[in-house]
Amino acid sequence: MSTTDAVRRHDPLSRGFASDNYAGAHPEVLAAIALANEGHQTAYGEDVYTAHLQEVIRGHFGPAAEAYPVFNGTGANVVALQAVTERWGAVVCAETAHINVDECGAPERVGGLKLLTVPTPHGKLTPELIDRQAWGWEDEHRAQPQVVSLAQTTELGTCYTPDEIREICDHAHERGMKVHLDGSRLANAAATLGLPLRAFTTDAGVDLLSLGGTKNGLLFGECVVVLDPDSVKAMKHLRKLSMQLASKMRFVSVQFEALLAGDLWLRSAARANAMASRLASAVRDVPGVEILHPVESNAVFARLPHDVSERLQKRYRFYFWDEAAGDVRWMCAFDTTEADVDGFVAAVREEMARG
Amino acid sequence: MSTTDAVRRHDPLSRGFASDNYAGAHPEVLAAIALANEGHQTAYGEDVYTAHLQEVIRGHFGPAAEAYPVFNGTGANVVALQAVTERWGAVVCAETAHINVDECGAPERVGGLKLLTVPTPHGKLTPELIDRQAWGWEDEHRAQPQVVSLAQTTELGTCYTPDEIREICDHAHERGMKVHLDGSRLANAAATLGLPLRAFTTDAGVDLLSLGGTKNGLLFGECVVVLDPDSVKAMKHLRKLSMQLASKMRFVSVQFEALLAGDLWLRSAARANAMASRLASAVRDVPGVEILHPVESNAVFARLPHDVSERLQKRYRFYFWDEAAGDVRWMCAFDTTEADVDGFVAAVREEMARG
Amino acid sequence: MSTTDAVRRHDPLSRGFASDNYAGAHPEVLAAIALANEGHQTAYGEDVYTAHLQEVIRGHFGPAAEAYPVFNGTGANVVALQAVTERWGAVVCAETAHINVDECGAPERVGGLKLLTVPTPHGKLTPELIDRQAWGWEDEHRAQPQVVSLAQTTELGTCYTPDEIREICDHAHERGMKVHLDGSRLANAAATLGLPLRAFTTDAGVDLLSLGGTKNGLLFGECVVVLDPDSVKAMKHLRKLSMQLASKMRFVSVQFEALLAGDLWLRSAARANAMASRLASAVRDVPGVEILHPVESNAVFARLPHDVSERLQKRYRFYFWDEAAGDVRWMCAFDTTEADVDGFVAAVREEMARG
Amino acid sequence: MSTTDAVRRHDPLSRGFASDNYAGAHPEVLAAIALANEGHQTAYGEDVYTAHLQEVIRGHFGPAAEAYPVFNGTGANVVALQAVTERWGAVVCAETAHINVDECGAPERVGGLKLLTVPTPHGKLTPELIDRQAWGWEDEHRAQPQVVSLAQTTELGTCYTPDEIREICDHAHERGMKVHLDGSRLANAAATLGLPLRAFTTDAGVDLLSLGGTKNGLLFGECVVVLDPDSVKAMKHLRKLSMQLASKMRFVSVQFEALLAGDLWLRSAARANAMASRLASAVRDVPGVEILHPVESNAVFARLPHDVSERLQKRYRFYFWDEAAGDVRWMCAFDTTEADVDGFVAAVREEMARG
Repeated sequence: MSTTDAVRRHDPLSRGFASDNYAGAHPEVLAAIALANEGHQTAYGEDVYTAHLQEVIRGHFGPAAEAYPVFNGTGANVVALQAVTERWGAVVCAETAHINVDECGAPERVGGLKLLTVPTPHGKLTPELIDRQAWGWEDEHRAQPQVVSLAQTTELGTCYTPDEIREICDHAHERGMKVHLDGSRLANAAATLGLPLRAFTTDAGVDLLSLGGTKNGLLFGECVVVLDPDSVKAMKHLRKLSMQLASKMRFVSVQFEALLAGDLWLRSAARANAMASRLASAVRDVPGVEILHPVESNAVFARLPHDVSERLQKRYRFYFWDEAAGDVRWMCAFDTTEADVDGFVAAVREEMARG
Repeated sequence: MSTTDAVRRHDPLSRGFASDNYAGAHPEVLAAIALANEGHQTAYGEDVYTAHLQEVIRGHFGPAAEAYPVFNGTGANVVALQAVTERWGAVVCAETAHINVDECGAPERVGGLKLLTVPTPHGKLTPELIDRQAWGWEDEHRAQPQVVSLAQTTELGTCYTPDEIREICDHAHERGMKVHLDGSRLANAAATLGLPLRAFTTDAGVDLLSLGGTKNGLLFGECVVVLDPDSVKAMKHLRKLSMQLASKMRFVSVQFEALLAGDLWLRSAARANAMASRLASAVRDVPGVEILHPVESNAVFARLPHDVSERLQKRYRFYFWDEAAGDVRWMCAFDTTEADVDGFVAAVREEMARG
Repeated sequence: MSTTDAVRRHDPLSRGFASDNYAGAHPEVLAAIALANEGHQTAYGEDVYTAHLQEVIRGHFGPAAEAYPVFNGTGANVVALQAVTERWGAVVCAETAHINVDECGAPERVGGLKLLTVPTPHGKLTPELIDRQAWGWEDEHRAQPQVVSLAQTTELGTCYTPDEIREICDHAHERGMKVHLDGSRLANAAATLGLPLRAFTTDAGVDLLSLGGTKNGLLFGECVVVLDPDSVKAMKHLRKLSMQLASKMRFVSVQFEALLAGDLWLRSAARANAMASRLASAVRDVPGVEILHPVESNAVFARLPHDVSERLQKRYRFYFWDEAAGDVRWMCAFDTTEADVDGFVAAVREEMARG
Repeated sequence: MSTTDAVRRHDPLSRGFASDNYAGAHPEVLAAIALANEGHQTAYGEDVYTAHLQEVIRGHFGPAAEAYPVFNGTGANVVALQAVTERWGAVVCAETAHINVDECGAPERVGGLKLLTVPTPHGKLTPELIDRQAWGWEDEHRAQPQVVSLAQTTELGTCYTPDEIREICDHAHERGMKVHLDGSRLANAAATLGLPLRAFTTDAGVDLLSLGGTKNGLLFGECVVVLDPDSVKAMKHLRKLSMQLASKMRFVSVQFEALLAGDLWLRSAARANAMASRLASAVRDVPGVEILHPVESNAVFARLPHDVSERLQKRYRFYFWDEAAGDVRWMCAFDTTEADVDGFVAAVREEMARG
């Protein structure tokens, strides 16, 4: 490999539990980028890697699926939501949804979308919960609920079953609403459910989704996957005006190929999930530690004494989720090892023991 | 290097003259990414590579400079322009500016900005041309001209001298306007002028700029560089709400380090420029070929018979710029070789000879 | 008065309890318009009536107050909120706030604002409730809470005391937030409190407010009143770009003069309030009718059997507020008479008696 | 008529040549408002006056026409343009168009629309001029031209013939674009052409228009008229989210009834036009005064020495149009008298004689 004027400035063995975004890229992904490099390829998606990605995506999501690579998760969500709403549209979502709490108002500001939020148990919507906001059609004083946005897995690490998603899709479609799925951790859901991706997306009636790549081991890159092209508007225009069109798109597409052509996506997600399970199992019976939500992906939400958490944070990076309540979030990544988990668990036990 | 399920699908020796975005990434850039990989780093810019990038940028642009890496050029421009305008602001720019003709209305749609455009000779603004739109302050019926946006080099491949930029900045500042510089090819300007980057940016009075990385050999990545922090609003909030905040930002930052810590940026730009000069020189005296603008970067704009261009396009990729007029654009990239140019020139001569 | 080709098409004696917007204009308001008619006056607010309105407003709200007449309440709110937020700003408000539930997403779509909502008892915010959303400053992932928006009276007809507002303003200001007050029924609050308008606005620390005119007896017209000009941005630009700048503004301003120069505003509001009190008192002891919120303005919210409400609606116009719960809203206007109320009360009794 | 606390503060005999917006309302319009007053009517357009307005509008524009009253001209234009564009749409218009130069960026900011402007002779578009911007469909880098916006009469006081409009509509429709007509002075065009309104709107292929009321003698009020409902999106939602939905809409609608049920609209426009013609005829042969555009409505654009204009402005209100060039605009209104014109012409002659 070529030399570079850049300098390694970090410890490549350091790993914490703050976020799956703290991990780097999987080596197979870097290898794919190198493969796609050199020579000229048409910019803005007219390259052979993006063309091939369509096949890969159809292999996972069915013959009607279309892939629109973008830069990041907020971009994927906002592009996708615009594609199933009119200017007067609104989005029904969980109060805890990433689009509601962690995107700095981009859906409102860039998409002009109103979010109609619902409190949920463990971050999961149901038809009944959706109906708390899905009303008022034809009333011009009310932003019109035109799409339900789910997250799979949810922001609280829980996972919908295919039946739950199908029930929501049927409910939404009966009311003329589309269903968007924020799948920044869709691979983790597949690993949890032990099902192919299409079982709880295309086959459950989802109209379009944001397929996460970054948290699954890419350098960067997400992908809007349109499952029902008849329901969705001119994606390519929306992607460009939303500033999510990569010029050298081959490098987004080939990363997704590395992820999805074989089983890298699943191996990586399964590892992260397994590490979260190992962590949850190990701390669940530590007195004073409470696991807050079902551990159905790579996230563990726990409640423990605030000062214990603060001492732990000096040893491992992680975030408070609700600092007032003492809630913390521990995330595992594709590169988290059993030793990482065991070391962290030992630290939890030590700090809890100190009281 | 690791194996991958991705497959090479293109000829790594193919090169055309369509766009510097058609090129891949420089090998030194890929090497830098590999260096920064593995281990965990704080996401969203709180990593050591982004911290170090600040030093690198200050080395080029002076001690007050601040670097805000983003995904792409449209994003850089729209984030930057919002940072020097209020909601009622407008942007004075050349009619040919990329922000006006090639960004699908993102400045208007995402930034809410009105562009006040001026026809220009060879794409370059002057104080006099700016004054055709810089008026009407205090008139609430007129979107308020709050920033002048230049491109260096321009969309037509021309290059401002430091004095020309300084004159524009003085003029703008006297009228209470800021100056933004779209520097997607800033390195090419430095190579043309034989001057350090700050000579025609910081030292000329520019308030903030979009520093191009992709066209200079990155996989992806641009950087808003704030030169006068007192003139500029909360960039970090604007970057996030504009969906341009990368989670694994270390990989944008380390690419810029590879580019800017040594002279890769200049080597790459100088090569591209030299190839454009070689091309222009070789075709300038071919009867029937007219060079339309001064060749001051890596672009050659030419006029030749339409059917000749069409035959040429079957042999080499390039774009019509104004198809009705018969104008074409030929771009060189960091990886364009002398043999590429000579082969293309020979093709031009052959096709012109066929008439 | 002149003849006209228009034809009276309605019964001028018909009055219901649906909305104070169902009433017409007060005759004194029409007389004022006639006074201001004929001859030429500078458009867009440079007329003598708008100039005089400034004095009238300063008389009510103190010497720093500035009046910006606009067309309607949504416009007043969205213009005002933009004037105290940056592009990345968010608004803390009650879940029941008009800006959240009844403006078709205009704050989000036109203002680009995220609303951070809180469930409230009887529609009233408190410092503690505000703190459920007023956090996360400096966190670029969170739209920044920059303003608290209260309504006086609230959407549920309740009224803040001056001390309650002052406490909220102090709390907000300590956190760097401004306070906006949606005063579409501000006059009703003054009538309820028996206090001058400034006692619970300027003197309580409110930064700017939307002063309602239409519901208080104008043909149309609301007014953004800036109480602390140092806190507020270029209102005139925001009003124009938000499409709320009237060309023949003299006719908005003179209506407000008619309202505010004497006591028409108070007489009209006091009458409406008195009628609501009369109504509430009369139905409060009807078995099966429950009054839901303190009656502190011109609104009565009640719960009664759904089929009773439906039969009542065939006799008098009014709205369900929460149809599933059986909640209805009964509004009185400046022109509601004692006979209107008594007739309605009799109808309620009759229909309740039918079961 | 009722007394009022408002006070007459202006000279009802003062009239200038600054703007048709400087005039007040026609007495017949005030009489209509009084007729519609008193009693309760459903708010937000569900009243009998707005229902009847539909019939009146169909009488003028044909059986498919639909009327959506709004507050002002900028509002009418921005609501209408959103109704025939997608989020990625652009508007082809004359460089001199009101939407481009005088609306503070509201089309861009509120509508998210890019304006693609063309220099025009005398403010009039042609198919050829439209084609300078109507291209690039399917190119995601270009905001998509989806609508042509004409003004009738134009911002420079000129008037399209029905054939000219039909030719533009055919041209636009063949390219998949809609045609919007900014008719803030549509009545003046009808008076000039001696044709019914539908002859150069519905019958010429226009899809929707902004029908001016204010400049034609209303207190306030414009109306979006949809001529081809199949081409136009959910207007009622767009009107509300654009903050242009009047609560007491009966008062907008009955003003339009007063205007349009008989011939008030035509009488008023014809008078204003006649006064402009009288003025132009009288000054045309004054040496040193140049009439700049055909006088085909109520506007006279003239060029005369700058200091003469400045002296004239001390005697009569009017505006410079292009101060550097010495261009001025003189507008006549429905209430301009022959004596007003003659007095002004005498003043022009006097000041020109002073040199």
